[in-house]
Amino acid sequence: MIFIDACFGKKTPYTPVWMMRQAGRYLPEYMEVRAKAGDFLSLCKDPQKACEVTLQPVDILGVDAAILFSDILVVPMEMGMDLRFEKGEGPIFDNPLKDKAQLEALHVNEAAKRLEYVYEAIRLIRAKLDSKKALIGFCGAPWTLATYMIEGRGTKTYSKCKKIIYQDPEFMHAILRKVTEVLKLYMSYQIEAGVNAVQIFDSWASALEESAFFEFSWPYMIEISSYLKSKYPHIPVILFPKGISGYLNKIDGDFDVFGVDWSTPIELAKEKLGDKYVLQGNMEPTRLYDKKAIDDGISHIVNVMQNKRHIFNLGHGILPDVPVENAKYFINSVQERTKV
Amino acid sequence: MIFIDACFGKKTPYTPVWMMRQAGRYLPEYMEVRAKAGDFLSLCKDPQKACEVTLQPVDILGVDAAILFSDILVVPMEMGMDLRFEKGEGPIFDNPLKDKAQLEALHVNEAAKRLEYVYEAIRLIRAKLDSKKALIGFCGAPWTLATYMIEGRGTKTYSKCKKIIYQDPEFMHAILRKVTEVLKLYMSYQIEAGVNAVQIFDSWASALEESAFFEFSWPYMIEISSYLKSKYPHIPVILFPKGISGYLNKIDGDFDVFGVDWSTPIELAKEKLGDKYVLQGNMEPTRLYDKKAIDDGISHIVNVMQNKRHIFNLGHGILPDVPVENAKYFINSVQERTKV
Repeated sequence: MIFIDACFGKKTPYTPVWMMRQAGRYLPEYMEVRAKAGDFLSLCKDPQKACEVTLQPVDILGVDAAILFSDILVVPMEMGMDLRFEKGEGPIFDNPLKDKAQLEALHVNEAAKRLEYVYEAIRLIRAKLDSKKALIGFCGAPWTLATYMIEGRGTKTYSKCKKIIYQDPEFMHAILRKVTEVLKLYMSYQIEAGVNAVQIFDSWASALEESAFFEFSWPYMIEISSYLKSKYPHIPVILFPKGISGYLNKIDGDFDVFGVDWSTPIELAKEKLGDKYVLQGNMEPTRLYDKKAIDDGISHIVNVMQNKRHIFNLGHGILPDVPVENAKYFINSVQERTKV
Repeated sequence: MIFIDACFGKKTPYTPVWMMRQAGRYLPEYMEVRAKAGDFLSLCKDPQKACEVTLQPVDILGVDAAILFSDILVVPMEMGMDLRFEKGEGPIFDNPLKDKAQLEALHVNEAAKRLEYVYEAIRLIRAKLDSKKALIGFCGAPWTLATYMIEGRGTKTYSKCKKIIYQDPEFMHAILRKVTEVLKLYMSYQIEAGVNAVQIFDSWASALEESAFFEFSWPYMIEISSYLKSKYPHIPVILFPKGISGYLNKIDGDFDVFGVDWSTPIELAKEKLGDKYVLQGNMEPTRLYDKKAIDDGISHIVNVMQNKRHIFNLGHGILPDVPVENAKYFINSVQERTKV
């Protein structure tokens, strides 16, 4: 698999490319399946339909890797928290975590087992997916999951989390430890079900100042990654902490690929991390609105990353109002432009 | 004025300190005046009440500079756009900018004149404020104002703005040029009314990738700054582009103080900009939830910035649920800890 080879820094015939959120709302075919499923969570829990939408971007766009269709919040949900998705508001936990008693009531082993519909989706996808294409499994980073579990919904200020961090850091660590234990099992079970690589998304890394990031986020990601690397050395681990361009010089640990978000100049990521890790990223996703902007974005990244280990991707998820034609143009252009 | 001396890099008896949003909702005295004013916009338009809330943090906390109470969006409002503040939603422009005809209908000279209530507030504040304390005037950066004018409200994706940037960049430049012209007049009039320094807030700088930031945001900030520095060399100009820690090495131009946000490690700002500019910032605002967190935050910044030109501040605005006692403790601790 060219994608897996690239994750391990091996030479490939061209730079493999996929897009975060590639199984998503910009595709009419996705909207059709989603309409049939009812709501978003039902789609996540339906292995057949999750399989179908996971495969769509491979068939329609020709990306080099499929990423499992799911949501990071199925994990706290199966730990025992009530989750619903409210239109226009996003995810909501009606009983956010406030104290140790609530935390103690959450499941670990049972949560990982309850996620069986994810493993079943993986088995279905891997059976149908072209053997030359990789299937990427994923989870949210412990910190990112904790923000939702504590705030109860999306937040601009993270004020509940920050109060815990600065007033009762041990409680925050207790939450993060428990989530980390579930994620180690969850990622192991995803691998055993057949994913060829895993990515950990720390979407809200940018909510933490440097010292807090290296206390409350990064060590837990590395704990999961180290655990997986020692157990499954043949499975590449991709870490994607978003919006930490100021902290790159302290990034270290046992993983394979560093996901670069679009707010981090690719030159900077190359300088700080390009010798230690394979880099993945990082075209500004809104460049997909325009073909010339796509050309310019690709040229810039290809020029910077020539002779460096690289996987092409957007620097964040594709937006729902991107024309499918432009997404195709992007994938095809990367594959053509980087042919050796 | 110790604050103005510090802006020009002169030695001061201690490091002056103020807080972004220091005239704000965490103060019961502010909430009282605001309740009397009715809504937020009425408070902005009432010079007496704006004066009153501007002076509150000077009296209550002992900060070294007052910052004019106002809102960055009064500028597009007086250019001719309908603005309202919706509870829980923030600012809304009901007719966001979509085309050149709408842009052409917006006022420049007249807008700057209509902001007379701001200049009147400045005259009132300057007459009442301790002559040793500085009064800071401010505006939003052209890019940040443009995001609201185009999106019509707060946004996570900036997708309307990004479509213009990548599909019709000349239209974006036309908007930014017009806003810049108003801001040059607005800042001049603020200075002539009596402010002792000005700060330009680019709150949404972080929404732009590096190349877009240096095409659509930074040059317009520098245009305003250069204009003010040539006309009023005795007035310090502070620029605060938020969340651009990846781009600091390219920051250059004619201004006095660079505002460092909390996501930029102060060590990094010192390394990249500390010899060229006075630095202002950058304690994580949520450290104000806890006194030990305040102590640790101050210690770290004081240690890094010793022997460098520095103004103490938070790295973003103070949050509404911070105890006033902790805000006092922060201000007083900085002033005591940095005494020479």
